[in-house]
Amino acid sequence: MKWTWVLVVVLLSFGSISLGKESLDFPEYDGKDRVHDLNAKNYKSVMKKYDIMVVYYHDHPGSSRAAQRQFDIEELALELAAQVLDEFEDEDIGVGLIDAKHDKAVAKKLGLDESDSIFVFTDDEVIEYDGELAADTLVEFIYDVREDIISQLIACLILAIKSLNTDFSSFEDDPQSFIPVYSPLYFEAYADAAEEFHPHILFYATFSPKVAKALDLKLNEVDFYEPFMDEPVVVPGKPYSEKELVKFIEDHDRPTLRKLQPHNMYEIWEDDVDGEHIIAFAEESDPDGFEFLEILKQVAEDNTDNPDLSIVWIDPDDFPLLLPHWEKTFGIDLSHPQIGVVEADDADSVWLDMDDGEDLPSADELEDWLEDVLNITSLLCKINVMLYTECAVHHMDVFYDDEI
Amino acid sequence: MKWTWVLVVVLLSFGSISLGKESLDFPEYDGKDRVHDLNAKNYKSVMKKYDIMVVYYHDHPGSSRAAQRQFDIEELALELAAQVLDEFEDEDIGVGLIDAKHDKAVAKKLGLDESDSIFVFTDDEVIEYDGELAADTLVEFIYDVREDIISQLIACLILAIKSLNTDFSSFEDDPQSFIPVYSPLYFEAYADAAEEFHPHILFYATFSPKVAKALDLKLNEVDFYEPFMDEPVVVPGKPYSEKELVKFIEDHDRPTLRKLQPHNMYEIWEDDVDGEHIIAFAEESDPDGFEFLEILKQVAEDNTDNPDLSIVWIDPDDFPLLLPHWEKTFGIDLSHPQIGVVEADDADSVWLDMDDGEDLPSADELEDWLEDVLNITSLLCKINVMLYTECAVHHMDVFYDDEI
Repeated sequence: MKWTWVLVVVLLSFGSISLGKESLDFPEYDGKDRVHDLNAKNYKSVMKKYDIMVVYYHDHPGSSRAAQRQFDIEELALELAAQVLDEFEDEDIGVGLIDAKHDKAVAKKLGLDESDSIFVFTDDEVIEYDGELAADTLVEFIYDVREDIISQLIACLILAIKSLNTDFSSFEDDPQSFIPVYSPLYFEAYADAAEEFHPHILFYATFSPKVAKALDLKLNEVDFYEPFMDEPVVVPGKPYSEKELVKFIEDHDRPTLRKLQPHNMYEIWEDDVDGEHIIAFAEESDPDGFEFLEILKQVAEDNTDNPDLSIVWIDPDDFPLLLPHWEKTFGIDLSHPQIGVVEADDADSVWLDMDDGEDLPSADELEDWLEDVLNITSLLCKINVMLYTECAVHHMDVFYDDEI
Repeated sequence: MKWTWVLVVVLLSFGSISLGKESLDFPEYDGKDRVHDLNAKNYKSVMKKYDIMVVYYHDHPGSSRAAQRQFDIEELALELAAQVLDEFEDEDIGVGLIDAKHDKAVAKKLGLDESDSIFVFTDDEVIEYDGELAADTLVEFIYDVREDIISQLIACLILAIKSLNTDFSSFEDDPQSFIPVYSPLYFEAYADAAEEFHPHILFYATFSPKVAKALDLKLNEVDFYEPFMDEPVVVPGKPYSEKELVKFIEDHDRPTLRKLQPHNMYEIWEDDVDGEHIIAFAEESDPDGFEFLEILKQVAEDNTDNPDLSIVWIDPDDFPLLLPHWEKTFGIDLSHPQIGVVEADDADSVWLDMDDGEDLPSADELEDWLEDVLNITSLLCKINVMLYTECAVHHMDVFYDDEI
């Protein structure tokens, strides 16, 4: 038997008698303030102290009590994140705030233009975090940032063997690349390209002919797995340069079906297709939602070559706090699967009537509907423009917003 | 074509031009205080106003700044939950606080003994919430409470048809029952039993012979699906009374493999087996973790009749804020799968050495290890008792805690 096991006994000090129960408790704020207010005087010395620095470049909070309390919530979320990140002994991770009113100059020096965003500074790069401002989601993102790209590549030797019997593309909802690498030359271009997309896209490599064969990978070739697709796309034009790899991935990083998650929600929302999003609500842990998701995957698979089709799948379970808001805004009942086309700028929307989920469409019917409705919503846009013309004040408001 | 579709056009008012972007924003605290401080004078009138009342019976916050800020975090989480729940127009859902120091008498009148817990009052029952005090997890639990048991039963007519091609037991991590019902008499006993476990255990019913046949269900028979098991257990002794059904479910509600989730974490932790928990960490979205979870399921399936075996599966992705704390407490690296036996009271633990995940055990090897280690930890307990005897002060502390 190749595999052996050893017992590791961890005897904790008796001082922590209630540790058993505490070991499950969510960390409570310990009262130590860790979040730095960064300004022109201190930002250099503070940032020098940390290996990774998380900076929230925030709008100046309003003076109303609501705005103050909201800022309290955000600050406490960051304090909690800083406290958790403080537990890592091998790396110093700091958290700081930059006020867009008082310290715009500091933000500018750090190369940040867009306020109300979080940026993660590492040795080599500045990574924007486009997700929910919540301690758990942010901390999880930092974990991904901390993953070393190269070790992640090498780890795949094992990972890939383990995953041979499973659907490789199902592991993560982000697109991922895969290369069987033997030559250090290829490896370098690949690793450099990987760095550009870290931690948003996962990169794997294998040095094992057996693994490569099982995955149908040719030597020094990169395969690109789109989420929810069984078959990868072979990146053309090898030998690849870093530039070519980056270009290919940039051209292909809008999948036909993608999952909205707390850590990527704003990023996806900004990436609309002609001002529209196709939004599908499906609760995976519910039989109806599960079935509907299978239909969506079928539609995505059938249309993966259509660059105009990108369906955003939202699992309502991931966003309990937004549910009533979405039901109101879109006028739909989210206890059943729903699919619709939503205008990215004003949230006008058109939804497929599925009779409260009792009558799910087939993949073909859904494709027909999408074709029809994408035309119809173009028509709707024209009507909107007409209405704007009739209502000149609002039209100007729009222009005004755009010009700011 | 039986299935038809209709366009539903929602044209929103022009006042909400930026609604598109806002429709994705997490709700921000609007400054309106909705959480009630319940006391002897107001609790009756406040609670009368709501259809559902969520009450946090909390320990009196300490006077330190840390304790105050921590209580702030909890209060703001409840305010946010109250604000989201306020959006439901068909039901009034209120949130209140009871201070265990000042208003113990109120808690007593409401039948609450255990402080530091959240209770949900509905028309018929008081349901304890044993999960994380976070707005999203709590709100999701309230959604489950709001689900009507009877409509859930009837909805299964459709749900079951849709799920015929899929693994029924995979939809939820809680055990669930299933009955093909034709007689109102049976239905009533079943519905009454369902009420006892709502919303923790899901109950389904079908009136369709076709569905019943596909699920291999006999008329007026209840099948019980344990999580992660393909085959259900037929509840013996029909015709069933409510009492018999409740007893059977109570006797079987500790599954062989169960998933720790933010909404049930404290409940599961309190349900230890002889003072111990078998804890398995496996990240489902990682190939290694996925593979290890498959092995765990195999072990659970092989040992489903062993009442002494209950493995708690934790997906580290669900608990980012606890990761560094667990790594420290247990002395393990959570970037790989881990399995160990943890003492519930003092968190002493023993872990299987899997060579950083490079060498996953087979199901048989894992079973052997569990058998061995469960003996070994019994031995460890004895050592602990000896050490307690030598360290009398701590021993007494334990007694003191118990007596309170």
